[in-house]
Amino acid sequence: MTADKTTLHDIDGNFQTAQDFTTQKSVEVAANGRFVRQTNEFIAEFGDGADKLAVAAGKYRLLWAPVCPWAHRSVIVRKILGLEEAISLGTADPLRPPLDHIDWSFTLDEGDVDPVLGIRYVGEVYENADSDYIKDGKRPTVPALVDIATKKVVENDYHNLTYYFEKEWKKYHKAGAPDLLPEDLEQEIRELNDIIFLEVNNGVYRAGFARSQEAYEKAYDRLFARLDWLEERLSKRRYLHGNRLTDSDVRLYTTLARFDVAYYSAFNCNRNRLIDFPNLWAYARDLYQTYGFGDTTDFEAIKKHYFLSTHIDPTEEHQAILPKGPELTVWTNWHAPHGRDEIEFEIE
Amino acid sequence: MTADKTTLHDIDGNFQTAQDFTTQKSVEVAANGRFVRQTNEFIAEFGDGADKLAVAAGKYRLLWAPVCPWAHRSVIVRKILGLEEAISLGTADPLRPPLDHIDWSFTLDEGDVDPVLGIRYVGEVYENADSDYIKDGKRPTVPALVDIATKKVVENDYHNLTYYFEKEWKKYHKAGAPDLLPEDLEQEIRELNDIIFLEVNNGVYRAGFARSQEAYEKAYDRLFARLDWLEERLSKRRYLHGNRLTDSDVRLYTTLARFDVAYYSAFNCNRNRLIDFPNLWAYARDLYQTYGFGDTTDFEAIKKHYFLSTHIDPTEEHQAILPKGPELTVWTNWHAPHGRDEIEFEIE
Repeated sequence: MTADKTTLHDIDGNFQTAQDFTTQKSVEVAANGRFVRQTNEFIAEFGDGADKLAVAAGKYRLLWAPVCPWAHRSVIVRKILGLEEAISLGTADPLRPPLDHIDWSFTLDEGDVDPVLGIRYVGEVYENADSDYIKDGKRPTVPALVDIATKKVVENDYHNLTYYFEKEWKKYHKAGAPDLLPEDLEQEIRELNDIIFLEVNNGVYRAGFARSQEAYEKAYDRLFARLDWLEERLSKRRYLHGNRLTDSDVRLYTTLARFDVAYYSAFNCNRNRLIDFPNLWAYARDLYQTYGFGDTTDFEAIKKHYFLSTHIDPTEEHQAILPKGPELTVWTNWHAPHGRDEIEFEIE
Repeated sequence: MTADKTTLHDIDGNFQTAQDFTTQKSVEVAANGRFVRQTNEFIAEFGDGADKLAVAAGKYRLLWAPVCPWAHRSVIVRKILGLEEAISLGTADPLRPPLDHIDWSFTLDEGDVDPVLGIRYVGEVYENADSDYIKDGKRPTVPALVDIATKKVVENDYHNLTYYFEKEWKKYHKAGAPDLLPEDLEQEIRELNDIIFLEVNNGVYRAGFARSQEAYEKAYDRLFARLDWLEERLSKRRYLHGNRLTDSDVRLYTTLARFDVAYYSAFNCNRNRLIDFPNLWAYARDLYQTYGFGDTTDFEAIKKHYFLSTHIDPTEEHQAILPKGPELTVWTNWHAPHGRDEIEFEIE
């Protein structure tokens, strides 16, 4: 399996390359107002051989922030597959620390330090691996898989991290763990995932971080056209690929869970809310009520990050107010029955 | 009838007085982060006598902006009562002009000038009436009723303007015009209007302009508690006071019409949307489909103002992006049947 980054085009169909970026503030917004996401630098593969990362229990620590959709997907998969003992977890604060560069901090931990790595900021494991990383204006990101012995980040390729967990880490899966990337569906899953990344997962950021009306509207139109397509697809299937939960469902879920509480208002993705889509909303509740999904979803952290984080939108001032809504028990009830296990879908 | 401004308390129960204000930017936000709205200065009454404003067709021009809920209410009442020929109408641009002070401009008119008054800015009629008005940091507001001969604002008391239209301007009402302020309901209407002003009409501004989390949450809680109360009230009545359309319905409508397109996101009033309230939403559609309401409601202008106007939130930078949503035909359809004329309400 090779990293399939070259299949990831930006919204205009251009490839993204590392040369596109120098600093977060200036270069993740392109001249025409488009948001162009930084590429990942630590993209080694797992497996046997000197050029591969070893698959070994207890060797790595996964750093995440519950707010981050890219990190959230890896934590869901880790939990569903039962990799919690093999790979430990460090949790960053939803709010960005007050530093000159964009980073994540361990202020939720005692002494503001991750108890295993002894670091205050995620950026430290990036500097340990590449001393120029922050100096060069690159942004430390989660998920970050860290070699505990060296305290260096070894993997931040969230495009492939769940694939590695699913395929390369099989010997550590718990008994009865579902196969989220079954061979007979792997190509279909990867193809749909690329679409979901471009138009949905990153589509909301392209809308929210656009700095021209045109770039925003393009992202908005493409996002909602894809959501309409997914709404239709999910009228015929319980999960995206039929009756089996797969990696694609994890990826779509992380954006859906953030949609009404964050993207609708903070990123201007407001044609309609998730709860207005009958199928997508029931599907999202179905997943939320599934082991690994709802129990890793922290709506308050998500809201805090998107509305209060000073670095969330580099062009705007700090917004001091955290919206109280949407109300998440009566008006938007993630625990309401979804009924999707009782439907006879056409395609199973 | 006297101006009942003294009955208008702020959200903490304090009176608002002119001494509370010096400039818009500093003083409409109080020390504890509360938004404290500027009081109106031109509050003469209509009637006979030297100290009253004459009721006379063709004498006045009403300046409004379709975005402004306070101005909108007076334009709805003017239309329902058939006062269009007696009182002409000048319309300001939804976007604030690039001036050092907050103002409204006539950039929608040919030559950027109101064709009757020959002014570029609403502020001019305020300066004509009080040469220190803008110098003193006061904010020119709409609705502004202007004496066409002198080009001076003579009335900006939107608390009472519709009452004047309804009671003092009766001789100019069209044949068959409804009585929006019937004597047997007048006290009830005024009392409910004061509540609606404090907790709903101005409640959304208190939430949106709050500069402390506490002030925001207080406004938010009080707003939604009142909307819940109104939702219940409208389950038993077609209109707020039974089977007759009254001034109270006009006042509630102007906030409801702006709720999902503006206040939900721009003012963080996001417990739930208007369209989630079965009774309030059907009631709002009922009004929207009534002569004088929908035909004076400009959702695009409303969105432009609340999201693009540089002065809408003095503490934040210009937001360049106009949200495309909410989509107003399929997902939020103001033209959908409301059914409220077919319900047998308990109280009529």
